[in-house]
Amino acid sequence: MQILKDRIISEGRVMPGNIINVASFLNQQVDIGLYNEIGKEFHRRFNDVHVSRILTIEASGIGIACVTAQYFNVPVVFARKFRAKNLDDNLFSASVTSYTHGVDYTITVPKPYLNASDSVLLIDDFLANGCAIEGLVKLVENAGATLAGAGVVIEKGFQHGGKWLRENNVRLESLAIIESMDPDTGVVFR
Amino acid sequence: MQILKDRIISEGRVMPGNIINVASFLNQQVDIGLYNEIGKEFHRRFNDVHVSRILTIEASGIGIACVTAQYFNVPVVFARKFRAKNLDDNLFSASVTSYTHGVDYTITVPKPYLNASDSVLLIDDFLANGCAIEGLVKLVENAGATLAGAGVVIEKGFQHGGKWLRENNVRLESLAIIESMDPDTGVVFR
Repeated sequence: MQILKDRIISEGRVMPGNIINVASFLNQQVDIGLYNEIGKEFHRRFNDVHVSRILTIEASGIGIACVTAQYFNVPVVFARKFRAKNLDDNLFSASVTSYTHGVDYTITVPKPYLNASDSVLLIDDFLANGCAIEGLVKLVENAGATLAGAGVVIEKGFQHGGKWLRENNVRLESLAIIESMDPDTGVVFR
Repeated sequence: MQILKDRIISEGRVMPGNIINVASFLNQQVDIGLYNEIGKEFHRRFNDVHVSRILTIEASGIGIACVTAQYFNVPVVFARKFRAKNLDDNLFSASVTSYTHGVDYTITVPKPYLNASDSVLLIDDFLANGCAIEGLVKLVENAGATLAGAGVVIEKGFQHGGKWLRENNVRLESLAIIESMDPDTGVVFR
């Protein structure tokens, strides 16, 4: 998606430790015009599959998921993150290991919000090692629902989340795939 | 806003401790059609004031703020919540006391995302004791920006957040104000 790539080049800040800061337009500060273009593009790419629900994870995926949901005209559900292990029986849950923050956490969705009859599209802002998306895949499996695919705005192609999803036959649409990046030389897209 | 009140009556679950659960349509699960009507209604109510930016707080305010921002055609910024006290100099911050969870936390926004020239509309899903909104008001003050007003979807009129905002001359638009509620007899609107 060219306007997204242009924006990453012009405003993204590559920092040591494989971090790219795009908070000025993609998450903590939202360019709502860009969000609309992102939503339209996800709809165009997943136009051939049935989607009855969009699933994301708090916090920065929520805005993108809501704007995208307008084009599909389906409900959004977001998974909550918990450190706690004691969970209500009325929740679907999955364990997630965050390589970035070095902690394990649990993500949950109330059971009434994911049904076996659902065809679920996962939406998130970033795909790196894929821990969060892998957790969302497990929630969909726990619900006995169908996984329609996963749409991410930026995939870090040099980390293994995308590879894991493709190897597991999850249809993945990444609007920009960063092949490599460096604080001195910048971003190279795949 | 009648369709919102109807939905609160039909799907909201009043629980002991002055809690009303509307997660099935307003936050953890999002009815995107209702979100659009909410966004339009905020735009209609604040149509006479200049708004250059919408400010909300993670997590459940983000989706409503993004959908609302489409009607104003302005960027959204969300404040992050932290337990930590050690903060970067490049952040505006405010302390917040949560009566609900019995903890203090700090909310922050990177300084480049709030400018003295901004006219800021606060958007959130709930207004109860007003701790979160009060923190957002402080962030706007710290930035030297103008406060255009505050729009909340559901105000718990029997708690003091709305009173505090009105007494401090903040223009508040609440789409539904709950005057009282009870697990047995349900919700009464103001």
